[in-house]
Amino acid sequence: MTPGRLEAFSDGVLAVAITLLVFQVTLPAIPTGHLAHALFHLWPSYASYALSFAIIGIIWVNHHAMFDRVATVDRTVLFLNLGLLMTVAFLPFPTAILAGYVHKGGADSHVAAALYSANMTGIGVFFLALWYHLGRTPGTLVEGFEVQARAALRRTVPGPCIYAASVGLAFVNAQACLVLYAAMAVYFIIPGRKAPPAQGIPTAGEVSP
Amino acid sequence: MTPGRLEAFSDGVLAVAITLLVFQVTLPAIPTGHLAHALFHLWPSYASYALSFAIIGIIWVNHHAMFDRVATVDRTVLFLNLGLLMTVAFLPFPTAILAGYVHKGGADSHVAAALYSANMTGIGVFFLALWYHLGRTPGTLVEGFEVQARAALRRTVPGPCIYAASVGLAFVNAQACLVLYAAMAVYFIIPGRKAPPAQGIPTAGEVSP
Amino acid sequence: MTPGRLEAFSDGVLAVAITLLVFQVTLPAIPTGHLAHALFHLWPSYASYALSFAIIGIIWVNHHAMFDRVATVDRTVLFLNLGLLMTVAFLPFPTAILAGYVHKGGADSHVAAALYSANMTGIGVFFLALWYHLGRTPGTLVEGFEVQARAALRRTVPGPCIYAASVGLAFVNAQACLVLYAAMAVYFIIPGRKAPPAQGIPTAGEVSP
Amino acid sequence: MTPGRLEAFSDGVLAVAITLLVFQVTLPAIPTGHLAHALFHLWPSYASYALSFAIIGIIWVNHHAMFDRVATVDRTVLFLNLGLLMTVAFLPFPTAILAGYVHKGGADSHVAAALYSANMTGIGVFFLALWYHLGRTPGTLVEGFEVQARAALRRTVPGPCIYAASVGLAFVNAQACLVLYAAMAVYFIIPGRKAPPAQGIPTAGEVSP
Repeated sequence: MTPGRLEAFSDGVLAVAITLLVFQVTLPAIPTGHLAHALFHLWPSYASYALSFAIIGIIWVNHHAMFDRVATVDRTVLFLNLGLLMTVAFLPFPTAILAGYVHKGGADSHVAAALYSANMTGIGVFFLALWYHLGRTPGTLVEGFEVQARAALRRTVPGPCIYAASVGLAFVNAQACLVLYAAMAVYFIIPGRKAPPAQGIPTAGEVSP
Repeated sequence: MTPGRLEAFSDGVLAVAITLLVFQVTLPAIPTGHLAHALFHLWPSYASYALSFAIIGIIWVNHHAMFDRVATVDRTVLFLNLGLLMTVAFLPFPTAILAGYVHKGGADSHVAAALYSANMTGIGVFFLALWYHLGRTPGTLVEGFEVQARAALRRTVPGPCIYAASVGLAFVNAQACLVLYAAMAVYFIIPGRKAPPAQGIPTAGEVSP
Repeated sequence: MTPGRLEAFSDGVLAVAITLLVFQVTLPAIPTGHLAHALFHLWPSYASYALSFAIIGIIWVNHHAMFDRVATVDRTVLFLNLGLLMTVAFLPFPTAILAGYVHKGGADSHVAAALYSANMTGIGVFFLALWYHLGRTPGTLVEGFEVQARAALRRTVPGPCIYAASVGLAFVNAQACLVLYAAMAVYFIIPGRKAPPAQGIPTAGEVSP
Repeated sequence: MTPGRLEAFSDGVLAVAITLLVFQVTLPAIPTGHLAHALFHLWPSYASYALSFAIIGIIWVNHHAMFDRVATVDRTVLFLNLGLLMTVAFLPFPTAILAGYVHKGGADSHVAAALYSANMTGIGVFFLALWYHLGRTPGTLVEGFEVQARAALRRTVPGPCIYAASVGLAFVNAQACLVLYAAMAVYFIIPGRKAPPAQGIPTAGEVSP
């Protein structure tokens, strides 16, 4: 299994997952003349569509930045990558739950945000495990990248930690979670830094050296 | 990130989005013996399927014409392209709304056409932003293409302007919007011009030099 | 636009369309203990899944055999190919209608079979138009393939003709249409002939020289 | 048809099928405040998602290991591979049935497990048929791989046999089937063996020489 082949399959899964997100945006049955009203009240669906689209897009960028440095794919990389894809391909479900419940307040909104945070934590853990394995296994990385891999591992740590903490935050304030998710995505997307940080998911911690 | 890799991912998203359009064509529950009648009354679904399929097909052609001229992908191109894909991958939703409401008349038909126009405007704005950035950023384009990029930018301007205007037109006459969308797509597809105009979405303005 | 790029996009659309066919196989709500019974009564869904899967698979083989011989993609080839993809990507809808109505007898079964036949006719017409255009337009084919293209065009004619005739047959006997579709697919798949006939859709006429 | 092209199309189908699995995870309508409860009771959906994701991932690895050794694609390989894809692309349906019924006990849980076992048997039979044909047909394999192909065929035999036996087991104990499926997937994924066994689906029999 070459890195190129693994990347092509992963790109296929990410492209399908990102495009399927629109299917969680569905209009309920409405009385005649209420389309404008109903479309307006779908804003949580639009927001969670944009959020998950941005996050999967960032994951695609980071996934590519990682496998650009991979020289050989061993069995562990192969199945850690499948685990990563399994958690990313699952994201449309928490996205739909978030869109349906986060604005309703009460226990359900907390649970919806916690589910989303938990899914994001899982994605981050697989990115972490991949960098950890790549940094420790001689021959898996393109020569000269071992030091960079350790730096990438360090930069990847805050992501899953923040998302894991946001599982707790969800039970305090679900809306704060949304702001946190959006801030982390925007932080990653805005230009001004030199190189794409080869890490897992966006995190405020990525500026640490 | 090479242009080829970005194009392959974009092609994947466009191929999935264009193929998912058929899922907005759904038959409601019908009494026995009424299948022919029910299938006939789905004509707005067939028409909006054909329309959105043609539009995403044209977007694919234009996207390819653009990235054929891109030499290096910087961070801005990367995320503007993700924004473009986000608006195109959303199109199945307005397509379904258009199919469900445009023939019903009244306020709902105006709103349905306005939503479709707004989505198309968004797609056009991202094409515009991409050409604007490419034309202003040295080194992003294949050498010798700078002049062509400025021409492409000029040709791209009318598209989002016409679609933005059609948001207003939608509230006057929803059916006129349909005719406008179809005319713009047909205008682009019919042969007889020399080169595929490397612009965003089809527009009557593209013949201007 | 190179033939390779057009083929990659077409392959993406065909791969998505063929994989989405399973979504027309859905279990209705059933009382406890009736799963075996309900699964058994889904046989028209399984049969139409297998039929449409085989047909799209054959289309993929034929599409590849055609574009292997294409040297340059002009505007007409580009948009005829988009038309072909539009009709193939639509097939999941007639497949679902066929699965839901063909075994119920009466007018609805005739209409369901006629719709499927009409969709297949459309696919065949686009294959015909592509071969016609390729055979008449100097420079579009790989050198030395002009004679073969005319033979391919002749072999492609019976396909859409038989399917067009089966629109009429559907109103006489819907089950006979199913047998005809299956026979045409099986005829194509069974080995024993020398070369994959570079034509559109399977047809008994393909053995003519 | 080159092996590379056939692999690219197969990868596309597998990537779409694996990503569509999440659509069988759906939340029923629930009263306010019951989201946590409802999400918890979806555990059979999560489990069957993870199971089918792992199985399709393993199939992808094995498919690649097979076609890496294929030199030329004849008509039989082409259509056996389409048959393999047809059975794999069908897996989301038994996955949804398994998720909906296996924990409910009674006849329905037995039927659900038997359906899943039957689908897995079909996948295994197509892998078997492919290795059988490749091992017997001179020129289809990369030179020097004929002996390995016979070994691969031997290692592939237990898979469909175990799954076929599990159709019977399903009617004795549906939960035991789940344990068996999971054990076979885990057995394949855990590292510690030298080379990826180029076989069809995971099986305890693969350690036989």
